[in-house]
Order: sequence, then C-alpha cells, then structure tokens
Amino acid sequence: MKRLQARLGYNFRDIELLQQAISHRSVGARNNERLEFLGDSILGFEVADNLYHRVGDADEGQLSRMRAHLVRRETLAEVARSLDLGDVLNLGAGELRSGGQSRDSILADAVEAIIAAVYLDGGLDQARALVRRLLGSRLTTPAAEIRLKDPKTRLQEYLQSIGHALPQYEVVEISGEQHRQRFRVACSTGIVADSDGEGSSRRKAEQAAAQAMLDALDGARP
Amino acid sequence: MKRLQARLGYNFRDIELLQQAISHRSVGARNNERLEFLGDSILGFEVADNLYHRVGDADEGQLSRMRAHLVRRETLAEVARSLDLGDVLNLGAGELRSGGQSRDSILADAVEAIIAAVYLDGGLDQARALVRRLLGSRLTTPAAEIRLKDPKTRLQEYLQSIGHALPQYEVVEISGEQHRQRFRVACSTGIVADSDGEGSSRRKAEQAAAQAMLDALDGARP
Repeated sequence: MKRLQARLGYNFRDIELLQQAISHRSVGARNNERLEFLGDSILGFEVADNLYHRVGDADEGQLSRMRAHLVRRETLAEVARSLDLGDVLNLGAGELRSGGQSRDSILADAVEAIIAAVYLDGGLDQARALVRRLLGSRLTTPAAEIRLKDPKTRLQEYLQSIGHALPQYEVVEISGEQHRQRFRVACSTGIVADSDGEGSSRRKAEQAAAQAMLDALDGARP
Repeated sequence: MKRLQARLGYNFRDIELLQQAISHRSVGARNNERLEFLGDSILGFEVADNLYHRVGDADEGQLSRMRAHLVRRETLAEVARSLDLGDVLNLGAGELRSGGQSRDSILADAVEAIIAAVYLDGGLDQARALVRRLLGSRLTTPAAEIRLKDPKTRLQEYLQSIGHALPQYEVVEISGEQHRQRFRVACSTGIVADSDGEGSSRRKAEQAAAQAMLDALDGARP
C-alpha cells in the first residue's frame, strides 16, 4: 500500500478508503462499486475541463470523442498497469483463478474508485490533481486528438485505403412530429451487411450508421 | 437577462458568458455547444456526489439509474421551463419558426451551458450550488428513486399488471475468451417480437434484454 500511495503521489489519512477502492465486488459487501460510480464522474469532469480549456478550436462533437477516448476502459486499464495495480487488487478466489487482476474492466474500475477515494479523503482539488497525474501526457498532447475524426471520415478513409468504393448513405425513415423528427439512415459498402443509424438530424443518423459500419467491419476483420 | 439571473440566483460578472450559454448553434459560431459539453460534466459530478452521500444503501446500478433520471433531457427541460428559459433563448430564424424555444433538447442543452457559464464566471462552488438549486427537491426526495427498480423487475411488474405470463430469458450466445466472455440473452413475452441484450455476465445481458423489451412494449403501446 505504501508503494501504491507513492505511485499515486498521494498519502491517505484514512487508508481504509484506499483498501475499499481496490476491493472488487467478488470479495464481498465492502467493495469499490459505489466509489467507482463517484470516481467516474470526477474523472469525466476533470477531463472535460482540461479539454475545454486546452483545445479551443474543437467543437462539441470533437471534444466528446476526445473525452470518450481518454476515459474509456482500455485507457484506464493502461493507467492501472502503470501503477502495478493488478498486484494489490483484492479479488475473490474465483476471480483470482480466472485472472481477474489483469482484466481491463476490473483494473479500470479500480482506477475510478481510487479517484473517488482520494476525493473523499483529501477533497476535490487533490482528486483532480490525481486525474491529471494519472492521465499525464495523454491529456496534454495531440495524441488525444486521434479520435478527432468523425465516423464518416474514418469510414471513408478506411475504404479508400483498401481501394474500395465510397459508402452509400440513404435515408430509410423519417418519423416523429415536424419539429422533433427522427431520421434513420442506411449505410452500404457491399463488404458486410448494410448498417443503420438513427438521429435527430440526417447528419447525425449518417454518423451513427457510419460508426455501426466501422464496428461491423472491425468485427469482420480476420 | 436581469430576470434570468435573479431566477438562477447568480449575477454574472461577465454577462457575455450567459449570453453565449443561451445561444443555440442556429445563431452562428458563438453558440453554447462547447459550454454544454463542459456543463454536462459538472452536472454529472454534482448529481453523483449528492446521490453517493444521500443514498447510502443504493448500489452502483441503482445510483446510475437515479443519476440518469436526474440528468436526462426531460428533467432538464422541466428545469428550463421553470426558469422561463424559452423566452430568452437566442435562436436562428428557422428554429424560432419551428418552435425551437419549446423543444426539450434545446432547452436542456441551454441549462447545461448555463451551468458551465457560472463555473467559468464564478468558480466550481458556485456552479455546484446552482445545480443543487436547479434540481431542488428532485435531488433530495425519494422521487429520485423512481428509477431504482431494475429493468427485469419493471418488466415483470408490468406483465403482472396486465395479467400476462412472466417473461422467458434464454442465453443464445456466449462468445469471447474464458475470462472476458460476452453473453447474449433473448427475452420473450409473446406480445411483441423477442428482444435481445448483451453483457459481460448473464445477469447483465438479461437486464439489457429486459430493457429492450420494455422499450419495444412502450413503442407498441397505442
């Protein structure tokens, strides 16, 4: 626990909070699930605040994609591994046997719970500073921008890269009253089955359909 | 603007921030979309923090459902209407003609943007206090608990209320490596087409399938 606190750059007054934060639900009632709920929201706020101030030229959609990339499970599991969190996690016997200490979801949840534990122990400023330390350069470098491109752009670039024709989008349904319409758009590439997407505008529905197509193509990849 | 500030219980040093917060993207580049991104995360944190401390006996799933209920579009549009926000919104001519000032999504977005504007103008404590004032009793009364029941329970209660047999759940697919399996579960009621749901456990997949069934039944209702 000493080493973990050193890596976090924070010393707990109430070490029980840290113990709870690294306790998976498989160990019993005193686990990190509620802390994870709280920590997730602190993480989301601190990341949003940083992106808002740092990336002045990004619109709301780009900011949302950058945030999603920074707070997603895989990123947080990476952070957990840099802390050697797997070595100190409290897991039930079954989870231990099946390798729970190296599972992304368990690691990511523990990171969020630790953020909440620092908040409860030392206040919000300490928790926000921890988020900045944990994410480090991910938060400050243009690497955060890899998700800047929207799904239609990524789909188009992918198809061009494999020498394939551009995707076709078609509005297949418009529903709802005039001022709150819903659009459904189909996207076809001829590679896998057509995907579709919904949204409050044609543009949003196309983006959703493109994302679904990217997911399907990902799944179809050998 | 004076009246709006009185209703918010906050006086802006920089009234431009409030102006921007109530400006829909249809008025041009200086709009509230980026503020909405930031405000959403402050709202999420303040609501999570309140629920965490107030509802000590709720588990993570229940807390998440309560939060989702408090921050959803319909709730925020209600808040906007209590502020008469529709009267002061800056909307482009097209949006005005189509009644944008009374549309839930536009109203809800403006509320989130105002939360961020108060944060940028007066700091986080002021923004958090604003969230508490805006949500008021919604945050403090058991009304927040109406979403406490999980989808399987709600589906079961609904079917019982119409004198219908209980739903059947069946695992239709298990995929992925042993320690990161995905479950797909079908839910059948015989009323509408079977729904399905996915998750990292059978329980989660069943809950997702039950939610999909509730949505389908909602859509099928006359």
